[in-house]
Amino acid sequence: MQTKTGKFITIEGCEGVGKSTQVELLKKYCVDNNIDALFTREPGGTPIAERIRQIILDTASEGMYGLTELFLFSASRVEHMGKIIMPALYNNKIVFCDRFTDSTLAYQAYARGENETAVKFMNDVARLDITINCTIFLDVDPTEGFKRIASRGQADRMENMGIDFHKKVYEGFLDIAKNSPDRVVSVNGNRSIEEVHNDIIAVLKKRNIL
Amino acid sequence: MQTKTGKFITIEGCEGVGKSTQVELLKKYCVDNNIDALFTREPGGTPIAERIRQIILDTASEGMYGLTELFLFSASRVEHMGKIIMPALYNNKIVFCDRFTDSTLAYQAYARGENETAVKFMNDVARLDITINCTIFLDVDPTEGFKRIASRGQADRMENMGIDFHKKVYEGFLDIAKNSPDRVVSVNGNRSIEEVHNDIIAVLKKRNIL
Repeated sequence: MQTKTGKFITIEGCEGVGKSTQVELLKKYCVDNNIDALFTREPGGTPIAERIRQIILDTASEGMYGLTELFLFSASRVEHMGKIIMPALYNNKIVFCDRFTDSTLAYQAYARGENETAVKFMNDVARLDITINCTIFLDVDPTEGFKRIASRGQADRMENMGIDFHKKVYEGFLDIAKNSPDRVVSVNGNRSIEEVHNDIIAVLKKRNIL
Repeated sequence: MQTKTGKFITIEGCEGVGKSTQVELLKKYCVDNNIDALFTREPGGTPIAERIRQIILDTASEGMYGLTELFLFSASRVEHMGKIIMPALYNNKIVFCDRFTDSTLAYQAYARGENETAVKFMNDVARLDITINCTIFLDVDPTEGFKRIASRGQADRMENMGIDFHKKVYEGFLDIAKNSPDRVVSVNGNRSIEEVHNDIIAVLKKRNIL
């Protein structure tokens, strides 16, 4: 029987916290240091997961239930997990996933009000028994995230949801970090890009992941 | 706040037990007796549920995980439940649904081996807190069902799954009936179409549904 030998890292945080920038820097770090890593994000490029994503995107305006969306996200996650993430872990790779189960919990349960027990249960089922070795939570106050995105001229989508929504997402992430202190490392994102990057590398080295 | 005033009836059983025939007779009975009833089956005709069903059908051969299928079925069920069944119940209709959560449990957990707790949890979530008032389980031994379908020249699909699979489904239904004696009524399907129909009507009258 195969055993998982790689490491599974998730990167979480509100919008406008610089997640994409940090993921790019991590990618460069891995290339520069010959580290065999896979960078992914849902739906992960599997054909079934992509089709599920299309349903979520196409019909959002036609009154899809939040619960339907949650089941669809979970279906998509099973495919991503089983066909992209697990094979990489079994091949000894480090897998970095941009958003994962914590985002589902923060957005769907804390912010949208779906039943927390249901969200947690589905998250656990869709993980296919794979443990996340470490989660980097980029901690930036959502009002600060708003400012950053506004300065890039991309504030529309965030503004549409309203600052209260994003504050609830943030509270969700803080709760998750508090409840899983061994897994989740909060990284202060209110600093220069380089300082945050160095901090992330330090965390991952301390945990023997890099 | 609206309260549910209708009655929700599900009809369950293995393949080849005469379920479709009995549903047609029930439909005729309701028309003849001016009973305001809705007859439905999943995916229930909602656009989102139909699209989900297409994914399940189209990609079945490409190695979709059983768990993905389970999440997709549940997503489809939420839409069917919320947009078709619930509005009918709130309008005081009797809703007859050809297969529902018990089929999911019998086929996915008992026969395919998906985690029973997961299947039950998803079934409960997707029901949207609506209680099934009565389930008619058409009890026919699966080997008998095989014979009936073979005599109609439609045995291929069942034979493809193998008799062992259908025996497991049957064991599942028997277990469900045993575990929910107040909800599930087993109707002996090894009799004439008319006898079975009269028995179903008698059960529903005794329960003040008809």
